[in-house]
Amino acid sequence: MSNHVHGGDIYRYKNVMDFSSNCNPFGTPESVKKAICRAAEDVHNYPDVEYTRLKEKLAGETGIPEESIFCGNGAAEVIFCAAAALKPKKALIPVPAFAEYEQALRACGCTTDYYMLSEEKGFRPGYDFIDRIDETTDVVFICNPANPTGVLLDREFVETTAVKCRENGAVLILDECFLDFVEDKESYTMTGLLEEYPNMLILKAFTKLYAMAGVRLGYGLCSDKAFIEKMRDSVQPWNVSTPAQYAGIAALDEKEYVNKSLTEIRSERDRLRKAVEDIGFTVYQSSANYIFFRGQKNLWEKCLAEGVMLRDCSNYRGLEKGYYRAAVRLKEENDRLIEVLRKVKD
Amino acid sequence: MSNHVHGGDIYRYKNVMDFSSNCNPFGTPESVKKAICRAAEDVHNYPDVEYTRLKEKLAGETGIPEESIFCGNGAAEVIFCAAAALKPKKALIPVPAFAEYEQALRACGCTTDYYMLSEEKGFRPGYDFIDRIDETTDVVFICNPANPTGVLLDREFVETTAVKCRENGAVLILDECFLDFVEDKESYTMTGLLEEYPNMLILKAFTKLYAMAGVRLGYGLCSDKAFIEKMRDSVQPWNVSTPAQYAGIAALDEKEYVNKSLTEIRSERDRLRKAVEDIGFTVYQSSANYIFFRGQKNLWEKCLAEGVMLRDCSNYRGLEKGYYRAAVRLKEENDRLIEVLRKVKD
Repeated sequence: MSNHVHGGDIYRYKNVMDFSSNCNPFGTPESVKKAICRAAEDVHNYPDVEYTRLKEKLAGETGIPEESIFCGNGAAEVIFCAAAALKPKKALIPVPAFAEYEQALRACGCTTDYYMLSEEKGFRPGYDFIDRIDETTDVVFICNPANPTGVLLDREFVETTAVKCRENGAVLILDECFLDFVEDKESYTMTGLLEEYPNMLILKAFTKLYAMAGVRLGYGLCSDKAFIEKMRDSVQPWNVSTPAQYAGIAALDEKEYVNKSLTEIRSERDRLRKAVEDIGFTVYQSSANYIFFRGQKNLWEKCLAEGVMLRDCSNYRGLEKGYYRAAVRLKEENDRLIEVLRKVKD
Repeated sequence: MSNHVHGGDIYRYKNVMDFSSNCNPFGTPESVKKAICRAAEDVHNYPDVEYTRLKEKLAGETGIPEESIFCGNGAAEVIFCAAAALKPKKALIPVPAFAEYEQALRACGCTTDYYMLSEEKGFRPGYDFIDRIDETTDVVFICNPANPTGVLLDREFVETTAVKCRENGAVLILDECFLDFVEDKESYTMTGLLEEYPNMLILKAFTKLYAMAGVRLGYGLCSDKAFIEKMRDSVQPWNVSTPAQYAGIAALDEKEYVNKSLTEIRSERDRLRKAVEDIGFTVYQSSANYIFFRGQKNLWEKCLAEGVMLRDCSNYRGLEKGYYRAAVRLKEENDRLIEVLRKVKD
C-alpha cells in the first residue's frame, strides 16, 4: 500500500455517495465522452507532443499566448514538473494545503517552511505570510481558493505576494484550479498579469469543472519561456495522452454546461453550508465547490456507515482529526448529506 | 517549438505512410478501443491510484508479484521516475539509444558516460562495455533489443552486466520494450531473475505490441520494494489514467491478436530486411519490429516526397546523417516502402 491518501478513493470504498472528491456533480459532458471514444480510434499513433490543437483552442478561449501554456497529465503533473524544473532549495507553503505541493518539493530534495493557517483567523493567511518571503525563498505556493478550506484570497493579497516573490527572485506557484467556482472570478484571477509577473506560474485543471478527473489534464500558465522549456525538459515528450487532448478540446466548447453547473453549484454550496451550520457544526467560509467544517472525531466513520463518504482532512499537515471537506453535489445528494449529518451529529 | 524530435510525428507530416514509429501495424485491438470508450463513462472519478485491477491482471499474466510492478504514463514516464528516484551522479549508456534515457538523466543533473557502439561491430557492445562499470557508476541503461538498431543481446551478456552492476552498487535499467517481437523471447528476458537482481529495473510497454501509443501505458518491474516506493514518491499519485488502466486490462486478454501479429511482423521484418539489402542498402541485424539501415544523406526527404516517412536517426547521439529506421508494417505497406526505396536509391 502507498501513503497516498486522497479523496475520491471509490475503489476502496464501494457503493457510497462520494463527497470526498470535488468534481462537477453534473458529470462528464457527453461531448467529452464522445471525444474520448473518438480518441480510441487514433491511439495507435503517439499523442501530438506539441498538443497543437489543444493549445490553440486554450489560447483562443483564454487569450493567453500559446507559448505561455504548458499542459500536463493532470495539474498534479504540472506541480511536479515545476518543482523538477526549479530545483528549489527553500519553499514556503501555507498549510493545510494540497499534499502534492509538499510531495513534489520533497521529491526534489527541497526544504519547506510551513506557514500555519490559524483556525481563529478562519484559515486566512495574514500579511505576516508575505513577510516570510525573503532572498532565501525559491518558491511559494498559494491556492486560491484554498484546498481544503475554500478560503478565497483577495487580489491585493495575491498581488502583494507576487511582488514580494519577484523582488526576491522567488517563483510564485498560484493554484487557481478551483477559481472557476467563485462568483466574479474575473476580479480574482491573476491570469491577466502573467506578463507583469514572469515569476508566476498559474495552475489550472480540467478535472473539477468538467468532471474528467480520470482523463488527467491540467495546465500551467507562465510568461517565462525559459521556465516553460525547463518544465518540458523535466518530463517525457508524450505526457498528454490522445484521449486527454481530444477531451480538453471538446470540453472548452461546453459553455452552457459550465454556466448551468456553476450557477447550481454556487447556490447549492451556500445552501449546504448554511444547513450544516444550522445542524450545529462549525463551517468555514468556502468559496469553492466544497464546504469545509469541523465535527466530532469519528464523523467520517459514522457517515460512511450511512453510505456517505466525506473527506477526512486529518492527514493534511496543520490539521487534526475532526476536520472534514464535503463536495457540493446535486440537490438530492446534498439533501442526503444534510440528513445523515443531522442523524449522526451527536 | 521544442527540441523533442521523435518518430511518429504524424501531426507535422500529414497524409504520409508512417514508418517512423514502431507500433503494431495490425492496429489497436477492438477490445482495447471499447475499453477506452467504457472508461469515458467513468472518468468523472479519479483513476485508481493503486491501479489494483490492472496490477492484478499483469501479475496474473506475467507471474510477477504485484508489489514488484510500477505503472507509468507510458514506459517513458517510468524512465523519468527511475531517474528522479535514484538521483544518480553518474550513468553509463551505450549509444545510439532511446533519447529519453539521456533526457531523464539530464533532468536530474546526472553526468553520463557514453559507450560508443561501433558500426564495424554491427552496433553490438563488447565486454569492454561491462568493464566501464565501476564503483562510481550509479545507473546503467541497456535496451534489448536496442532502439534504433534492433541489436539483440544474449542472456549471458545481459546477466554479466547485471552482476557487475550489483557488485558495484549500480542499478541496471533494462529496457525490454521491444523484446516481445523477438523469436524465443523467453530465453532472452530477464523477468525471471528479478529476485536475484533487486538492482535491476525492467521496462515494458503496452505501446508497441498493442498499438496504443496514444493511451500512455508502460510499466517497470523490480523486486526492490524500497525503490518502487521511491518511484511512486517521485510522481503524482494519479499518473495512470482511467482509459489507460481499462485499456491495459483489455489488452492483456488479446492473446490471439498478439500471436497473429508477432508471426506476421517477424516474417515481414525478415523479408523487408532482405529486400532493402537486395536494393543495395547496408542493413543491420535487427531482431525488433523495425529495420535499421544506412543510405544516402537525403534519403528521408526523398522518401517523404514519395509519401513514405522513415525515422531519420541522425539526431541519435552517436549517429550522423544517413542512418534510418523503418517500422515493419503490413505486407502491402512494406511492399510500398521497398518500391519507394528502389526508386530513390541513387
